[in-house]
Amino acid sequence: MRTLKITLSYDGTRYSGWQRQPGRLTIQGELEQALQRITREDVRAVGSGRTDAGVHALGQVVSVDLESNLTAETLQRALDGYLPHDLAVLSVEEARPGFHAIADALWKTYRYVLHDGSARDVFRQRFAWHYKCRLDAEAMHRAAQAFVGTQDFRAFESQWPTRASSVRTIREIHVARGHDGCDNLIALSVTADGFLYNMVRAITGTLVDVGRGARDEQWPREVIQAGDRGKAGMTAPPEGLFLVRVEY
Amino acid sequence: MRTLKITLSYDGTRYSGWQRQPGRLTIQGELEQALQRITREDVRAVGSGRTDAGVHALGQVVSVDLESNLTAETLQRALDGYLPHDLAVLSVEEARPGFHAIADALWKTYRYVLHDGSARDVFRQRFAWHYKCRLDAEAMHRAAQAFVGTQDFRAFESQWPTRASSVRTIREIHVARGHDGCDNLIALSVTADGFLYNMVRAITGTLVDVGRGARDEQWPREVIQAGDRGKAGMTAPPEGLFLVRVEY
Repeated sequence: MRTLKITLSYDGTRYSGWQRQPGRLTIQGELEQALQRITREDVRAVGSGRTDAGVHALGQVVSVDLESNLTAETLQRALDGYLPHDLAVLSVEEARPGFHAIADALWKTYRYVLHDGSARDVFRQRFAWHYKCRLDAEAMHRAAQAFVGTQDFRAFESQWPTRASSVRTIREIHVARGHDGCDNLIALSVTADGFLYNMVRAITGTLVDVGRGARDEQWPREVIQAGDRGKAGMTAPPEGLFLVRVEY
Repeated sequence: MRTLKITLSYDGTRYSGWQRQPGRLTIQGELEQALQRITREDVRAVGSGRTDAGVHALGQVVSVDLESNLTAETLQRALDGYLPHDLAVLSVEEARPGFHAIADALWKTYRYVLHDGSARDVFRQRFAWHYKCRLDAEAMHRAAQAFVGTQDFRAFESQWPTRASSVRTIREIHVARGHDGCDNLIALSVTADGFLYNMVRAITGTLVDVGRGARDEQWPREVIQAGDRGKAGMTAPPEGLFLVRVEY
């Protein structure tokens, strides 16, 4: 038995998220099926994070245990042939035996992309939240600094309590206009040791309330302290969210 | 009766092209249906060019004759509400009575986008032709200059002869790497007084043969002179093609 580390990119629009579900198109389902066709083994793929329906990945990391002695390069080429056009393998590498994509993850970075032009952009609509008011990205960036540190983020978890603890450490968070060279694209990037369910989307919805001027820059800090999901902003829609990278 | 000029943008991936066809999703069909629901008139929309299945538009121009006295602004807002998310109205303007999007067009500009990285890019695959060999964009640009001028382009028409004449005037053509700030995106832009069926895609396929080194830079000129579709390059796939703008 050997362990492989597979890095994936996907356009999540068509998928019911990462996690395999009967009768649904999922990333895990497609990857496992392709690996099974190639190796004829009953493969289980562990993803670093269970991205939701409609969420994308630039660098999702997956661990798999295999008997097969196909080289990593051969596996990558074969996967490229079997996987659908909106799911790409960026790399296949040998990992130390027992490497586990969830348990061994140290830091994960997500990006949320907002498009705040008044006109719809058909080429961005799959990959950004179209928000019709102009947002103050600098105010959002300042307000976002309240999230940095080791804190109880239960106010930003959709289905609390699903985990033993809602304490997480956010290493850094940035909000900046000009993503991808476009003046009407704002990117929010956040790196943490782990995320609660819908946490990035709830943080985004909260910062948008600051960006549109409905709340002041101190408000997110009060929401964190209150620890009440009902006090935070809305859960931003999935299409703007990207799992960017996982550090081990 | 009044005439309106409507400018549209669309992601053509889901559509069977511009032209209305029974039982198929088409741009013309969606637009006419939305206009009919808004005005309760039997509206016919004339598009400047009948883009093919999978081809996109940044600025398709459409003329429609209407009785309705709704303002252009009200019509635009109503259309925004009725049209699907991958079809956007950029503007609705009053035109001189009798304005006709095809007959009055002077110049049309198309862009073809090539992605020549070895790795698949799931976020580009709907909007670029993924070509796995590295292409020489500068050689393609030099070779492309053979297309400029008033010439018989029958070697670049897929179903010859469908038109009275295959003579067209190409005003300019450019090929450049670095489209959208990306080193592995090449854009070919071509402006002409009209285009034959699949002409831009056949020109692209021909220039790609130069870019990958299979043909020399003089070869496109010989193909034009031979006037034989069988001598030109392949028809590039639709996903890389955009109708950029129409000048009147």
